Amino acid sequence: MAMTGVLRPGHCQLRVLDMQESVDFYSNVMGLVHMGSDDQGREYFKTADERDHHSLILREADQAGMDFYGFKVLDKQTLEQLDADLNAYGVKTERIAAGEMLATGERLRFTAPTGHVFELYYQREDVGDGLGYVNPGVRVDGPGGICPVRLDHWQIHGADLDGSRDLFCNVLGFKVVERIKAEDGETDLAVWLSCSTKAHDIAFVRDERNNTLHHAAYLLESWERVLHAADVMAAKDVALDIGPLRHGITKGKTIYAFDPSGNRFETFSGGYDFYPDMKPLVWTYDQMGSAIFYHTRELNERFLTVVT
Amino acid sequence: MAMTGVLRPGHCQLRVLDMQESVDFYSNVMGLVHMGSDDQGREYFKTADERDHHSLILREADQAGMDFYGFKVLDKQTLEQLDADLNAYGVKTERIAAGEMLATGERLRFTAPTGHVFELYYQREDVGDGLGYVNPGVRVDGPGGICPVRLDHWQIHGADLDGSRDLFCNVLGFKVVERIKAEDGETDLAVWLSCSTKAHDIAFVRDERNNTLHHAAYLLESWERVLHAADVMAAKDVALDIGPLRHGITKGKTIYAFDPSGNRFETFSGGYDFYPDMKPLVWTYDQMGSAIFYHTRELNERFLTVVT
Amino acid sequence: MAMTGVLRPGHCQLRVLDMQESVDFYSNVMGLVHMGSDDQGREYFKTADERDHHSLILREADQAGMDFYGFKVLDKQTLEQLDADLNAYGVKTERIAAGEMLATGERLRFTAPTGHVFELYYQREDVGDGLGYVNPGVRVDGPGGICPVRLDHWQIHGADLDGSRDLFCNVLGFKVVERIKAEDGETDLAVWLSCSTKAHDIAFVRDERNNTLHHAAYLLESWERVLHAADVMAAKDVALDIGPLRHGITKGKTIYAFDPSGNRFETFSGGYDFYPDMKPLVWTYDQMGSAIFYHTRELNERFLTVVT
Amino acid sequence: MAMTGVLRPGHCQLRVLDMQESVDFYSNVMGLVHMGSDDQGREYFKTADERDHHSLILREADQAGMDFYGFKVLDKQTLEQLDADLNAYGVKTERIAAGEMLATGERLRFTAPTGHVFELYYQREDVGDGLGYVNPGVRVDGPGGICPVRLDHWQIHGADLDGSRDLFCNVLGFKVVERIKAEDGETDLAVWLSCSTKAHDIAFVRDERNNTLHHAAYLLESWERVLHAADVMAAKDVALDIGPLRHGITKGKTIYAFDPSGNRFETFSGGYDFYPDMKPLVWTYDQMGSAIFYHTRELNERFLTVVT
Repeated sequence: MAMTGVLRPGHCQLRVLDMQESVDFYSNVMGLVHMGSDDQGREYFKTADERDHHSLILREADQAGMDFYGFKVLDKQTLEQLDADLNAYGVKTERIAAGEMLATGERLRFTAPTGHVFELYYQREDVGDGLGYVNPGVRVDGPGGICPVRLDHWQIHGADLDGSRDLFCNVLGFKVVERIKAEDGETDLAVWLSCSTKAHDIAFVRDERNNTLHHAAYLLESWERVLHAADVMAAKDVALDIGPLRHGITKGKTIYAFDPSGNRFETFSGGYDFYPDMKPLVWTYDQMGSAIFYHTRELNERFLTVVT
Repeated sequence: MAMTGVLRPGHCQLRVLDMQESVDFYSNVMGLVHMGSDDQGREYFKTADERDHHSLILREADQAGMDFYGFKVLDKQTLEQLDADLNAYGVKTERIAAGEMLATGERLRFTAPTGHVFELYYQREDVGDGLGYVNPGVRVDGPGGICPVRLDHWQIHGADLDGSRDLFCNVLGFKVVERIKAEDGETDLAVWLSCSTKAHDIAFVRDERNNTLHHAAYLLESWERVLHAADVMAAKDVALDIGPLRHGITKGKTIYAFDPSGNRFETFSGGYDFYPDMKPLVWTYDQMGSAIFYHTRELNERFLTVVT
Repeated sequence: MAMTGVLRPGHCQLRVLDMQESVDFYSNVMGLVHMGSDDQGREYFKTADERDHHSLILREADQAGMDFYGFKVLDKQTLEQLDADLNAYGVKTERIAAGEMLATGERLRFTAPTGHVFELYYQREDVGDGLGYVNPGVRVDGPGGICPVRLDHWQIHGADLDGSRDLFCNVLGFKVVERIKAEDGETDLAVWLSCSTKAHDIAFVRDERNNTLHHAAYLLESWERVLHAADVMAAKDVALDIGPLRHGITKGKTIYAFDPSGNRFETFSGGYDFYPDMKPLVWTYDQMGSAIFYHTRELNERFLTVVT
Repeated sequence: MAMTGVLRPGHCQLRVLDMQESVDFYSNVMGLVHMGSDDQGREYFKTADERDHHSLILREADQAGMDFYGFKVLDKQTLEQLDADLNAYGVKTERIAAGEMLATGERLRFTAPTGHVFELYYQREDVGDGLGYVNPGVRVDGPGGICPVRLDHWQIHGADLDGSRDLFCNVLGFKVVERIKAEDGETDLAVWLSCSTKAHDIAFVRDERNNTLHHAAYLLESWERVLHAADVMAAKDVALDIGPLRHGITKGKTIYAFDPSGNRFETFSGGYDFYPDMKPLVWTYDQMGSAIFYHTRELNERFLTVVT
């Protein structure tokens, strides 16, 4: 098998301050498909194009942020192997029974050194993308709003970046795609990791604030859809962080903004394809501005400081 | 490791009728970077963005077509394992020594049931994409011409589609992404296979003409670059087959045209990402037109008949 | 006044074979806004972005084609002057009273040498584009379908091209923007005329079939919207003529297709801006293919023969 | 004649601090074609697509800013009529002899109430766009750099906005397209004026700093070319002001940046077409942010304060 092991970001459970407002936001502004709710009152969403039952779960809480981050793995055998590998690496794991989350099989849960809770799972109901599996066409009318292609990746912050980076690379099979070095030229300030051919499936940033979320990212079809997303945000009065602009890192074209609870999200297109035979790209401390925001060549204060 | 085994199409050796004319075409019309020639008189090319030394080799011959198709694999261990697996599957293999091809390590060669010659290799000189590995920027001026991102995939024809499909799926780890069924609803007329998250790394079409090439495909950055490619072809009087238009299969946006030797090539953008947990999409015989050319909904004679 | 006289194509009355089917087509496939009907049973449409009450009127009839073509002029004084100028030029005119057409003032009607009926008018109710005149935003969700920006121009056929061309240039203030010459190098086979800074407000083609319509054209926002239009046509099974591709003439990017009655329409984007100090561009007979279809460099039979 | 009187912005003479650096900038970063210099040491440029000999003249000086702004008018008769009209309106005019500026006929010069010097002219050598007037193709390789379509418009500042607005509207035939009102709801803070079907040929902003330039604007082909322009600016270390983003006013998509002398320029695409029968759009004082920067919905200090 060429694409094996950990496949992709598959779900995340986001804490929102007002569920009704958030369901409206993720339905009508982000343009996700509302897939239902469970008996814990959690609300489930997928993008129109995703085939699995959901990729976003909202949980009402007093504080914004992300409860956990889930990766889909190839199959049960992979899950069992990774469970053993994690334990062997010294990481405690626990199982969550199938059905605790709608339409989803058993999950393996562990906490990374940066304090974030991760889950691995291999089974979720395939509900399709609405175009069918026989003679599918092309979607010409999305559900409205930003209407992204998929949940794509997360950027998350914590102190022990090295620990989480190594755990993901040594145990879960991720590779470093790009990195920003500290002034000492040695320490990783931030790393972009891939478990696939994407330029990033997850990014870790060194930050004393453990278990924090910088952003969850949604992929868009094109640079013209990035413009459309910015127009939607303006029309719907969404709090913008920055963009549209291009990243130096990954070369993606992006907008950052905030959901009604203050959770930052990214809507972006592009980014090059990565293969594990490619050498990581390195950005030096003095070029951090260009690394993140290639056009402005400087970071804005809000981007640097706000996490949830 | 999440991305393992066979990584991607890495090179192909194309027969051209007039080397000088072809070097001019692939340099100035296709917009590839000419990387040099070897003592056999073969000429080497890469796209501006590719980091490995080359992806296209031209060999002057009396008849157009493709000599062989090369896939890069992860490492030597993978090569050895696949060699053993191929032999175990009943496929004879041979080794070509490092250095026979410029900047390239040893290659493993075998012939697929459709008559095509394939190669696997794991080492090629990393010459970079010209932007460097430290603080790389974004390319703003390509070498001119069509200037694709990468060699992307091939569509090739032969009688024993089932044999090649099974070899690629059972031994090399490819997955069926989409397929067109014959009138009987059972037989595969064509299959699109992926060894990565691409919608296709190779496609096989059932055709009595064994070991033939339908097209080699180059990826473009965007739909606007597809337009640019069409403009370049018109300005340079390249023989157009069809396009710009969209595929039903893969949903890519494309143009087909011919090089001066009559070898068809594709320049395309887009196409969805595929993961091995996704069910293949199936197109029925009566919808073959929409499957291939979503906009015209019918195949043109030339597309169906010309191979090299 | 810098922009004076005849302003733009403002309306046309199209004959359709089945009104219900046509209202559905222009509403849900073309994505126009249905503005109502009059006591003659005619149905009125505008694009979402147009501010005047309507630009398309459908009339049910036994034969497809266009009843008349209307240009908006600057004001009543212009209308009166052009009436006098037309009469002085030997063209008979008649008046149609305000109110005969919904939301529209009096119209001046005349027949051009190619047999087409034209109208001039200066008053139509400004219903706005739905975004308002104070602090308007940007439209993020159109009415669905192709959703063009505006009715843009017509290409119409008749024998006395010279007569209509001269009438438009000498009396109505149009300028020749581009032309295709016959084999003799002298005779105009086709002329593209502008009354504004558009590359064409109308085109005449020499054709024995007087008073015929080749196509009515709708402007799209971008090349990506041309792709979307092609996707909509495929999804809705609209009869495609050709495209997407680029014109040599005007450099626009286009698709031609047919409405349910067989009337050809164009959906296109781009095209350069024309000013009256610019010399006309000339295409020779042997380059007619490139002039019309820059990418294919040849005309298709259907495009050459079908008119309504 | 439908398009008459004042046609378009045709030239401007920009003061630069270092001629060599500026010639390099406008040649290699902006991607204009260098057309030569005159015996006063002024350097002339045009865009690749412009047909007239030049649209930008650089003059070395100790202070940045614009010497004068030139509009091309239809013909000599128009020039004479506007000269008489200006004098009748109380505006003094002077003539500059043909040949004082390269490839250009006589010019009529006057000073507007905001202190800016304007010129009208009707003759300039037509050097073509390099594609020829017979069977022209489509440009596939520009001169590199940003490579805009044309000089498009200027935004200029001065105290007596009302005076300049009225002069342009009452004498030169411009129309108000959009305006921003002051807090009193009456006073114009800024007006966008058109002499064509463009959403703006010139904009005046009320500002005590008379005879100042906010920016000269260059049109780009598409939103994708706006991205390319931003990439070029980053790669060439051009001082960015803001963008890419969309305007509320005109709906254009834009970037603002500075030339090496500190003169702000705009590179933008899009914007709707305006006709003189369209009511002006009005933006209220509290929505000024959205009016200018639709996405950020707020103005940045630099944009508000820096003029040359």
